[in-house]
Amino acid sequence: MRTFRLVIACPDRVGIVAKVSNLLATYNGWITEASHHSDLDNGWFFMRHEIRADSLPFDLEGFRHAFAPIAREFGMRWQVYDSAVKKRVVLMASRESHCLADLLHRWHSGELYCEIPCVISNHDDLRSMVEWHGIPYHHVPVDPQDKTPAFAEVSRLIAEHQADCVVLARYMQILPPTLCQDYAGRVINIHHSFLPSFAGAKPYHQAAKRGVKLIGATCHYVTEELDAGPIIEQDVARVTHRQQAEDMVRIGKDVERRVLARGLRYHLEDRVLVHDNKTVVFD
Amino acid sequence: MRTFRLVIACPDRVGIVAKVSNLLATYNGWITEASHHSDLDNGWFFMRHEIRADSLPFDLEGFRHAFAPIAREFGMRWQVYDSAVKKRVVLMASRESHCLADLLHRWHSGELYCEIPCVISNHDDLRSMVEWHGIPYHHVPVDPQDKTPAFAEVSRLIAEHQADCVVLARYMQILPPTLCQDYAGRVINIHHSFLPSFAGAKPYHQAAKRGVKLIGATCHYVTEELDAGPIIEQDVARVTHRQQAEDMVRIGKDVERRVLARGLRYHLEDRVLVHDNKTVVFD
Amino acid sequence: MRTFRLVIACPDRVGIVAKVSNLLATYNGWITEASHHSDLDNGWFFMRHEIRADSLPFDLEGFRHAFAPIAREFGMRWQVYDSAVKKRVVLMASRESHCLADLLHRWHSGELYCEIPCVISNHDDLRSMVEWHGIPYHHVPVDPQDKTPAFAEVSRLIAEHQADCVVLARYMQILPPTLCQDYAGRVINIHHSFLPSFAGAKPYHQAAKRGVKLIGATCHYVTEELDAGPIIEQDVARVTHRQQAEDMVRIGKDVERRVLARGLRYHLEDRVLVHDNKTVVFD
Amino acid sequence: MRTFRLVIACPDRVGIVAKVSNLLATYNGWITEASHHSDLDNGWFFMRHEIRADSLPFDLEGFRHAFAPIAREFGMRWQVYDSAVKKRVVLMASRESHCLADLLHRWHSGELYCEIPCVISNHDDLRSMVEWHGIPYHHVPVDPQDKTPAFAEVSRLIAEHQADCVVLARYMQILPPTLCQDYAGRVINIHHSFLPSFAGAKPYHQAAKRGVKLIGATCHYVTEELDAGPIIEQDVARVTHRQQAEDMVRIGKDVERRVLARGLRYHLEDRVLVHDNKTVVFD
Repeated sequence: MRTFRLVIACPDRVGIVAKVSNLLATYNGWITEASHHSDLDNGWFFMRHEIRADSLPFDLEGFRHAFAPIAREFGMRWQVYDSAVKKRVVLMASRESHCLADLLHRWHSGELYCEIPCVISNHDDLRSMVEWHGIPYHHVPVDPQDKTPAFAEVSRLIAEHQADCVVLARYMQILPPTLCQDYAGRVINIHHSFLPSFAGAKPYHQAAKRGVKLIGATCHYVTEELDAGPIIEQDVARVTHRQQAEDMVRIGKDVERRVLARGLRYHLEDRVLVHDNKTVVFD
Repeated sequence: MRTFRLVIACPDRVGIVAKVSNLLATYNGWITEASHHSDLDNGWFFMRHEIRADSLPFDLEGFRHAFAPIAREFGMRWQVYDSAVKKRVVLMASRESHCLADLLHRWHSGELYCEIPCVISNHDDLRSMVEWHGIPYHHVPVDPQDKTPAFAEVSRLIAEHQADCVVLARYMQILPPTLCQDYAGRVINIHHSFLPSFAGAKPYHQAAKRGVKLIGATCHYVTEELDAGPIIEQDVARVTHRQQAEDMVRIGKDVERRVLARGLRYHLEDRVLVHDNKTVVFD
Repeated sequence: MRTFRLVIACPDRVGIVAKVSNLLATYNGWITEASHHSDLDNGWFFMRHEIRADSLPFDLEGFRHAFAPIAREFGMRWQVYDSAVKKRVVLMASRESHCLADLLHRWHSGELYCEIPCVISNHDDLRSMVEWHGIPYHHVPVDPQDKTPAFAEVSRLIAEHQADCVVLARYMQILPPTLCQDYAGRVINIHHSFLPSFAGAKPYHQAAKRGVKLIGATCHYVTEELDAGPIIEQDVARVTHRQQAEDMVRIGKDVERRVLARGLRYHLEDRVLVHDNKTVVFD
Repeated sequence: MRTFRLVIACPDRVGIVAKVSNLLATYNGWITEASHHSDLDNGWFFMRHEIRADSLPFDLEGFRHAFAPIAREFGMRWQVYDSAVKKRVVLMASRESHCLADLLHRWHSGELYCEIPCVISNHDDLRSMVEWHGIPYHHVPVDPQDKTPAFAEVSRLIAEHQADCVVLARYMQILPPTLCQDYAGRVINIHHSFLPSFAGAKPYHQAAKRGVKLIGATCHYVTEELDAGPIIEQDVARVTHRQQAEDMVRIGKDVERRVLARGLRYHLEDRVLVHDNKTVVFD
């Protein structure tokens, strides 16, 4: 069922819901899903509606036109999306295949509703798997001495493929600040720890050393500060003294996969609103 | 913060949210929490709002008066509750203390917002614990040969204490059908299995026999059919071959406690809507 | 590190561990992992050792010869396995790809240590995915009017490929009793419910109808009685009123995948002992 | 069933299990539970046995005498405990009652097998609850300007009550280093975060600020370094954007309670071995 997804954030005050739902009712819009959140700490209001497209008398442009006055009145940051328009998601990976293979399978089986115009990797290992899915594979090696050319090429590829969103599926390289800024709120990373614990390198080894009894993974938007962006989704798995770091790596892969897949799905369905380095996720 | 809680269920159609939010906006009502659910399977719509009482120009009676026309127009089943009015919860228990002690502590420490006019038990074991909390304890023994007099007395006590809600905190007796009917949607039970598995007696022993790897507990409204009422909340805990039935009893107690406490809190905060023997829980 | 895995079940009595560990110490065997379980309910004892192969003066045959007298003395059911010998696992699937793709990826990336001599399916849909992995794909359609020829062919293929183990990765067909008997304790199924709830067909629809708050999956050995064999592993995921049956299908897939992968890994590492239709899993 | 619990840690080498189990078999000792762990990272071996006391021809002293030569031979750190001897556990609390009430109830209902000679608190709030359980309550106020006299008194009380173990059930004060040293491995704390995240003060507020999607609790042995001691047990609960810090406090209480209760039970049953600031927990 095709819907329009109206996503709003604005300072909270009386009458927002009434104005918005009035407008939708005026045009006979059939709401299939509605979510609201008033953040009492900072006085902001967040809202997401899904409205059946076939119940409305206009297209996305018409919707924007009709909605703009309300948005101005309440000082809204807002977007409206057409559920039928697939977002273009560029996947980036390194040598580890588990997250990439998982996303590709979800996409291939129709669970993940998006286009994947290409995969970019600093290694050539996963080419065959990607190409079997009919997706172009760009091998962009990163020279540790001078990463600038590689990231220039990465930026060019992302732009060329008109990415709406970039997913770092265990890419293992730190993106340059300009890329983080250009795609703020649109680059999704999976970090293999329960952040803020064990940010940075080799989190499973850090976890094994500290002797924690649960390990985790964190799906977050990338910001310039490493592993410190807004968290979209997290999960954990139990470990015991029997698990060494390499066992944690294996167990953690399952957590990484499902946390990244959930986080990406939330993003693709326009369920994630970012405010103050935190997320509202209307799942 | 005192709120009015407006809870609605009605056949889904266009314009419900607009009408309701318009009314609230007309009276300048400040919505602190709003939840909606369209059940696409059966075409019903469910809604819950919390509105700051001090933002509205009327009391609960005035609210009801103002809202009644809308309710009629849309054929709503609806209620509005004052968050400041404590529900009266009669607790029933048998010999096992864990659920009762947990609820009493949550009440005593202010976490559970309600009144507990009395505890009714078929045994006298837990009297001292209950009375330390300043709550009357009624010992109503149940004669297995003729349970009628006991349940007449139980019914009388529930009525006398003007219970809004009855909680079977491991009461271990089956309530008679008339009591189930008179308090439909207001008697909450905790069953010590992950229903529908292991309904009836000795669920942990059934679970041990079947060799399941997780045990659970289910908080549900009581209906005439045993362990078959609408489920409010469930949770599980992991077990292994090392746990015999008696270990499951111990591990399960923790699950029972938190599942019952969560379910009861949802009920007390008017977050549970029942339809077609299932619940919508706006948590 | 190559190990011998010694797996034992016998009536419990004093001196078993001493005898076994004495024997191992006599030959200077280096134990890397040891697990014991005394089932106090039925008086049985279960034990699993991993011993470094390079610490022992004999091969598997020599081990068996040395150990046989002890096994006789204590009436043991026992096996010793060489961790370096890959089990031959025949995968069976239908149209749904999620479990099959997951197992193939784990195998391909080296996480699942086994050989996969072939995949058998009653449909031809997944051929390309399987063949990309370099694994033969046998399409054996099942005629609903007469399943006998199909299962004769399935049996033939399993035998021809010398399967140590058969995995029903959402195969969706009920195996004939003879096959269940011939491969007792070696056919692993994933059922898409938290058994014993919702055995049989369409468990997610059953779950949606009952209004449960958690859905699950169960990995078990296949026996002649449908969905009633010894449970190896189970897990659950939370759902709410927002999830219809089709959402449960999607959410459940993630549970199915990881439950099947964990269950199969336990089996491949000889960690599962069956007794009285229940399992001891030395994880 | 009364058992002797033999707990051992030593450098790993061939023959340990054989020697120990031989000794037990020589005296006809009936092992009801046996756990082993070889830490391949650091080359240490850990072992715990429960042996039926009535199957052995000697008492604890006799056991120690018989076992001492083996312990010397292998350079073991070891202890043997009589399961019938209740450990003496001094509970310390502040104003928050949830952990204390939970432990008292578990003790009172027989789930927690120990003696509680007294409760020490820096406030007088929880006196009545404690005294209802028949347990002496010591109010030892802590002067923020000079904590020395208070902790002298605390030390005196712990010594006077011959504590085997001290539990900080949300005591909210930092113990002085000497007390940490004197009771190394015997002071158990519950920290209300998933360590190492959010050590120190107000962890739920730190968690709310960071926008994590799970909150947790950690039961650990107290060392001189704040919140950095060996972790015994951890668990988490899911939160969303809807939960403010105060909701996390409420949700977290349930996690704290069960994590502390599990951790303490492991300790009381001699299931926790500490090595290199990490724990082996034979659950």
